Amino acid sequence: MEYVTGVRTKETLEIKELLAEEMQGRTVKINGAVHAIRDMGNIAFVIVRKRDGLIQCVYEEKNSKFDLKDLREAFTVEVTGTLSKADKAPNGIEIRIREIKVLSVPAEALPLPISKWKLKTSLDAKLNYRPISLRNLRERAKFKLQEGIVRGFRDFLYQEGFTEIHTPKIGAKSAEGGANLFKLDYFHRPAILQQSPQFYKQMMVGVYDRVFETAPVFRAEKHNTRRHLNEYTSLDFEMGYIDGFEDIMAMETGFLQYTMKLLETDYAKELQILGITLPRTDVIPAVRFDEIKRLASEKYGRAMKNPFDLEPEEELSISRYAKEEWDADFVFVTHYPSKKRPFYAMDDPADPRFTLSFDLLFRGMEITTGGQRIHDYQKLLEKMEARDMTTEGMEQYLSAFKYGMPPHGGLGIGMERLTMKLVGEDNVRETTLFPRDLSRLEP
Amino acid sequence: MEYVTGVRTKETLEIKELLAEEMQGRTVKINGAVHAIRDMGNIAFVIVRKRDGLIQCVYEEKNSKFDLKDLREAFTVEVTGTLSKADKAPNGIEIRIREIKVLSVPAEALPLPISKWKLKTSLDAKLNYRPISLRNLRERAKFKLQEGIVRGFRDFLYQEGFTEIHTPKIGAKSAEGGANLFKLDYFHRPAILQQSPQFYKQMMVGVYDRVFETAPVFRAEKHNTRRHLNEYTSLDFEMGYIDGFEDIMAMETGFLQYTMKLLETDYAKELQILGITLPRTDVIPAVRFDEIKRLASEKYGRAMKNPFDLEPEEELSISRYAKEEWDADFVFVTHYPSKKRPFYAMDDPADPRFTLSFDLLFRGMEITTGGQRIHDYQKLLEKMEARDMTTEGMEQYLSAFKYGMPPHGGLGIGMERLTMKLVGEDNVRETTLFPRDLSRLEP
Repeated sequence: MEYVTGVRTKETLEIKELLAEEMQGRTVKINGAVHAIRDMGNIAFVIVRKRDGLIQCVYEEKNSKFDLKDLREAFTVEVTGTLSKADKAPNGIEIRIREIKVLSVPAEALPLPISKWKLKTSLDAKLNYRPISLRNLRERAKFKLQEGIVRGFRDFLYQEGFTEIHTPKIGAKSAEGGANLFKLDYFHRPAILQQSPQFYKQMMVGVYDRVFETAPVFRAEKHNTRRHLNEYTSLDFEMGYIDGFEDIMAMETGFLQYTMKLLETDYAKELQILGITLPRTDVIPAVRFDEIKRLASEKYGRAMKNPFDLEPEEELSISRYAKEEWDADFVFVTHYPSKKRPFYAMDDPADPRFTLSFDLLFRGMEITTGGQRIHDYQKLLEKMEARDMTTEGMEQYLSAFKYGMPPHGGLGIGMERLTMKLVGEDNVRETTLFPRDLSRLEP
Repeated sequence: MEYVTGVRTKETLEIKELLAEEMQGRTVKINGAVHAIRDMGNIAFVIVRKRDGLIQCVYEEKNSKFDLKDLREAFTVEVTGTLSKADKAPNGIEIRIREIKVLSVPAEALPLPISKWKLKTSLDAKLNYRPISLRNLRERAKFKLQEGIVRGFRDFLYQEGFTEIHTPKIGAKSAEGGANLFKLDYFHRPAILQQSPQFYKQMMVGVYDRVFETAPVFRAEKHNTRRHLNEYTSLDFEMGYIDGFEDIMAMETGFLQYTMKLLETDYAKELQILGITLPRTDVIPAVRFDEIKRLASEKYGRAMKNPFDLEPEEELSISRYAKEEWDADFVFVTHYPSKKRPFYAMDDPADPRFTLSFDLLFRGMEITTGGQRIHDYQKLLEKMEARDMTTEGMEQYLSAFKYGMPPHGGLGIGMERLTMKLVGEDNVRETTLFPRDLSRLEP
């Protein structure tokens, strides 16, 4: 028997540790993957990739006790050598190699030029070789920023008194949204994959007042576009005791403000690698659905096709309008038509053709749907009846309302879309680690 | 158009704000759900439930401008009144009610006595009425602690340089573990639900060196026991550049140490509500599989049935042994037999019948499986061949190794089981928000 006492201190150092002034001139040990080798004749640069960046290691025939020919890209290694400053090297430091210990050897040469600054490869090639293409610094930086977004979402909501929940993804078939559900066999019973944690997070408002979840959702939609995925990560929250759906927009604005600040401080390196300018979040305009449709249509001279729906190209022109008129990257579009919203959306008492709900558009694309929900049991039953819906399979959801629920509302944010628009990509697959779409089920 | 500027300050106060010394004697406004009403004749106590606890509100006929009969349990309300100290009340404060504004009214009386300190109801009743039973303070405290566990996992790993990833739950059929997979139709192609993010997190070690994920996993196992679920939340990490599987155990110990401290500081209220004594995590014994089996069998006089497997009752006696001999709540059992581990587990070069792997037992139950993985492409192929496995459908997983991977390992922790053992429950459904088992698909 031996005792395990906690995280072990390692001899190998990380970039942050190497940057300390007193380390210069010392013998240090690092590990990482050989990202690139640049042979200049007498000397060579062996660029080592670590999780927090690159380190330039200098091979010199007289000093380095190994043959450069024995080293190739994608080897993982442990390098021992002398640390010194080097203005032109990444992070301003380099290591003059004394010894290299090889930890692992690849079986084949890399299929993609991952050490290039920009990986100029087709999206398909990138996705087919996902575990390799992500080794490119710019590719992996996108998903590091994605981490920051989700982290910001959680940390901000903890701070605002929300409780994190974990709700099931397999469920019984219910009345809502049958067409877009993936179906599976659950021990000889028909089951579905949840397209949203909507019902669960609402039920949990009766328990914790404010809840959130960051988890996968599944949509069997047959869209094959740049903006649709059949599985994505949804950032969901739901909060009780609201005065109106404006409280939900205010909370989302708070999240965006918090997160942009977090990215600025903790993810500055990735922002710099990708050359990203963060969007404005100090104020976000909120404008009615019918009003902004009219404004954008007048300004850009396009006729509205359908006063009760929003086409993707209208989202673009609304965002353009918000940018030109209000210098806004984000814009809330409020009061969506009732018939385009689910049964649980609360209608506007002033005009029940519209709901107390909103979408958030970011640089031309919807990234959030949210709003106030019906919290009264009778009103919920009436709305379902008006829509010819059955309550079968929804007994437990409805029971939360039967036994009392506060006024509440919430939203869902598409993590991949928000990342996509933040990093300036035009296909959501670029910011999805392993996308699932009509044709892609692997890797 | 209006501008949204961020989170709004509300007139209604939270418990933390009410506890400030200067607030005593002032008129305050709060909101919440009526948890219980205790009518004493002239006065009555209206106990209001908020997300962070209970507030005692005092109804007095002469002072309170409403009729007590108009109020019932499970109403949600906004209370205005005078704040004062009250030694016997929750949090040591109470509000003498002046006005009550009713926000919502339940349609029926509560089906469970949720305001009782202990909800003495069958597990089935609790689960059938999940959105209601969780309104009980003790029931909801369990899941608040669960939040703390997951939060501790993430925060500790961020600090240790891990990157959070989001991997797909729908996948193509592959060679591994076919029997325990849920199958679904994915646009007329056969697909499965992932039983673990194992392959994805390994692939991502080649990108970020250290990664983690907290997400649902799906197992179509036909076990109907107190410890099995068909969907659960797995806390997974995987780390590269390890010197051995001991590094994984060290990291897990670090996580447990960090998290117990976090629970002590940020979740003290919940620990107190549930009367929990936190387990020891300063040192955790690690002992070989064959050795601890022998030790426990000798001490408790039970014959070993199978030297290559561990029965649930053996887990109990090993934990008992660890407690009695080493005063340990946790115990690592190392070097599991190779034939009981998946193909990617690294065999012990000293004795390939065993692997460089471990389980962590906590108070009699396995809550973690982890170990070092094979990182060499050829060795991985050989092991698969030795097991008569096809590489079909695993090309992309294997390609990560073909193009170089560092020595690495990782683990998966069952969130619900860890919570269960922490709070002292004996059925994992007690610490699963909405469990999925052989018979339960709702709510």
